[in-house]
Amino acid sequence: MGTNRSPQSPDPGLVSLTDIEGAAERIRGTVVRTPLIPDADLSESLGCEVRLKCESLQKAGSFKARGACNFLARLTPEELERGVITYSSGNHAQAVAFAAGLKGARAVVVMPTTAPRVKSDGARRLGARVEFAGTTSEHRRERAEEIATAEGLVMVPPFDHSWIIAGAGTVAREVVEDWPEVDTLLVPIGGGGQVSGCAAALRRLKPGATIIGVEPAGAPTMRRALDAGAPQTLDRIDTIADGLAPTRAGDLTYAHAAALLDDVVLVEDEDIRRAARHLMLRRKLVVEYSGAATVAALISGCVPEGTSRAPGTPSGPDPATPRNVCAVLSGGNLDTSLLGEILDPAAA
Amino acid sequence: MGTNRSPQSPDPGLVSLTDIEGAAERIRGTVVRTPLIPDADLSESLGCEVRLKCESLQKAGSFKARGACNFLARLTPEELERGVITYSSGNHAQAVAFAAGLKGARAVVVMPTTAPRVKSDGARRLGARVEFAGTTSEHRRERAEEIATAEGLVMVPPFDHSWIIAGAGTVAREVVEDWPEVDTLLVPIGGGGQVSGCAAALRRLKPGATIIGVEPAGAPTMRRALDAGAPQTLDRIDTIADGLAPTRAGDLTYAHAAALLDDVVLVEDEDIRRAARHLMLRRKLVVEYSGAATVAALISGCVPEGTSRAPGTPSGPDPATPRNVCAVLSGGNLDTSLLGEILDPAAA
Repeated sequence: MGTNRSPQSPDPGLVSLTDIEGAAERIRGTVVRTPLIPDADLSESLGCEVRLKCESLQKAGSFKARGACNFLARLTPEELERGVITYSSGNHAQAVAFAAGLKGARAVVVMPTTAPRVKSDGARRLGARVEFAGTTSEHRRERAEEIATAEGLVMVPPFDHSWIIAGAGTVAREVVEDWPEVDTLLVPIGGGGQVSGCAAALRRLKPGATIIGVEPAGAPTMRRALDAGAPQTLDRIDTIADGLAPTRAGDLTYAHAAALLDDVVLVEDEDIRRAARHLMLRRKLVVEYSGAATVAALISGCVPEGTSRAPGTPSGPDPATPRNVCAVLSGGNLDTSLLGEILDPAAA
Repeated sequence: MGTNRSPQSPDPGLVSLTDIEGAAERIRGTVVRTPLIPDADLSESLGCEVRLKCESLQKAGSFKARGACNFLARLTPEELERGVITYSSGNHAQAVAFAAGLKGARAVVVMPTTAPRVKSDGARRLGARVEFAGTTSEHRRERAEEIATAEGLVMVPPFDHSWIIAGAGTVAREVVEDWPEVDTLLVPIGGGGQVSGCAAALRRLKPGATIIGVEPAGAPTMRRALDAGAPQTLDRIDTIADGLAPTRAGDLTYAHAAALLDDVVLVEDEDIRRAARHLMLRRKLVVEYSGAATVAALISGCVPEGTSRAPGTPSGPDPATPRNVCAVLSGGNLDTSLLGEILDPAAA
C-alpha cells in the first residue's frame, strides 16, 4: 500500500499550527479537554503502550464540536444574526446545533433519512431545526444549499474548510501536550477533517511521529483519492460506520492527506463491531462504530510494525516500532438500538 | 435527617492530609488520574454545574485500585514474598489482584458466591486465585482469615484501614486540584473507605465545602451507624448495588463519617437504574450500579438545596446553594447481563 506522503515542506494552503493554536484559544472552556485513557488490554496484546483519546466524551458527543465552535467563533455578529445551516450524517449537525446554541444563533441541519435517531434527536434537543434529505452526502449538501439561499443562512461545511480542520486539529494538540512521548496517532477518516487537522498539528509538534488514517473497507474515500491522485466520487458505500461514509473526500482534506499522512488503512465492519464491544465491556466507554474504527485497526493488525515512511521524512524515533500509540475515539453517539447488537456475544 | 458532623477539630486517629499526599505520591503513574466530565443535562436540570469524577475509567475498573496500590506499596519485601489475600464483593478483589500483579506478589481473593461474573473473571484475568464463600461480607471475611492463617498471607482489608482510606482519599484530592471551585462532593458508601478518604481530603483542602455520602435505601449501613452512634450489623441487605452492600460499617470508617460528613442520603434502586441508564445513553459511560448511586441522588432530589451544616462548621460558600457539584462514579464493573437491563426503556 505504501505511503502517500510527499517529502516536500507543507503546502502553504494547508492549515498551520498557528491556525490550530488560534482555534484552541477560541474554543477553550467551550469544549471538553477530553481524557487520554490507557488501554491495558491492547497495550499487552500489541506490545506497546496504547492510549485512547476520548472524543466520545466531548460536548455534543464527538470531536465535531471543536470545528463547529471554532467556525462560529469566527463569524461576524451580522452572520450570527442570520443563522447557520449545515449538512451532516449526524455528528457535525449536533455540533453545529451546540455551537449555535452557545451563540444564540438559529441553526438548521440537513441529515440523511437514514440518520441514527440518537443523532437527529440530539440535534433537536440542542435547538436545531432538522430537515431530512436523501441518503448520500451529495443529497444533503444540495438541499442545504437550497435552504441556505432561500433563508439567508451561513453554511458551516462539515469538513472541507480550514476553520473546521483547525478546530479538529486541537485533538492532536491536546494529545501531544498530555503525552509528549506519543509516536503514532490513529484517526478515523470520514470527510477527512479530523485527520487533516490532526496531521497538521502532529507534523509540526512531533515531526518524527507517524500519523495513520483509518477508513472502513466499504467506504474507502480517502484511500481511493490518494491512489488516484485526486478525490473520486464513490458510487457505492457499504459500512456500519455511518459517520465515515461520505461519498467523496474534500479537496482541502485530500490536500492535507496527500501531504501529511503516513498511511491510510482500511478496516472491516466486523472488526469495528469487535472494537466497539471491547470498548464498552473492557474500557467502559460507549463509542459509536465510526469512533471505534481506530481500535478496529489495532485489533485487526492493520497497523503492523514497520508502517512505511516516505523517503525524506524528518528523522525521529524509528517508525518501524511504534511504542506509544494513540487511537482517537472520535464519537460516542451510538444509537440505542445498536447497543444490544454490540452486546451480542456473536459479535465478540 | 440533619447532619452528623461534630464541630470539633479532626480526631487524631483519622487519616490526615499528609497520609493522602503520601498515598498520591506512592500510586502516581500506577493508577489513572481519572477525568472530571461535565454533565450538561444534570447541570441544566439542577441549575448548578455538575461534573462526574470517572473512577469507572480507573485501572481494574474502580477507585479501589488506589487503596490497594497504596497498601501494597507499604508492604515489606518479605510481606510481598508471602503474598496477599482479601475479601470483597468484587472491585477490591480486582484492585488487589491488579496491585499484586504489579509487585509480582501472589494474590488470593475471597468473593461471594453471588459475585458478578465480570468481577470474578476480572480478578482471575489479573492473576488472582479466586475463592468463593457465602453471600455476606462476614462470610467472606471469615473464610479469608482462615486461608490467610493457613497460607501465611498478608490481609488487605477492603475498607477499614488507614492505608486503604488514604489511597481512596486521592480521588477528592484530584477533584479539588482539577476543579478548585468545587463546593459539594457526593461519594457512594459501601464500607465507607472512599467517603472517609474523600472527606479527610476535602475537609482540609476545602474547609467550607459540603461532603455527602450516598447509600442504597436497602443497605443503609452508615446511616444506621450514624443514627445509633456506633456501627450496627444489618440483618438484611436488599439492593442492586452489589458494591455498596456490606452488612456493617467499619470502626474507622464510621469514625471518619461521624467526624467529617455533612450528611448521608439514601437512594432507591429504581433511581440507581435510571442513573446508570442516563450515564450510558447520555454521558457514554458504562458505570456499575454502585458507581451510579451519586447520580441517583442528584436525579431523585436527595441532595436538595439547603443541605444542613453543623453549627461551628468553618465558614465558606453558603452550603444552602450548591453551585459546583462533583459526583464520584466509583466503578464501571457492570455485569454484561445487566447492560441489557439498563437499556430496557421500562427503566427509563
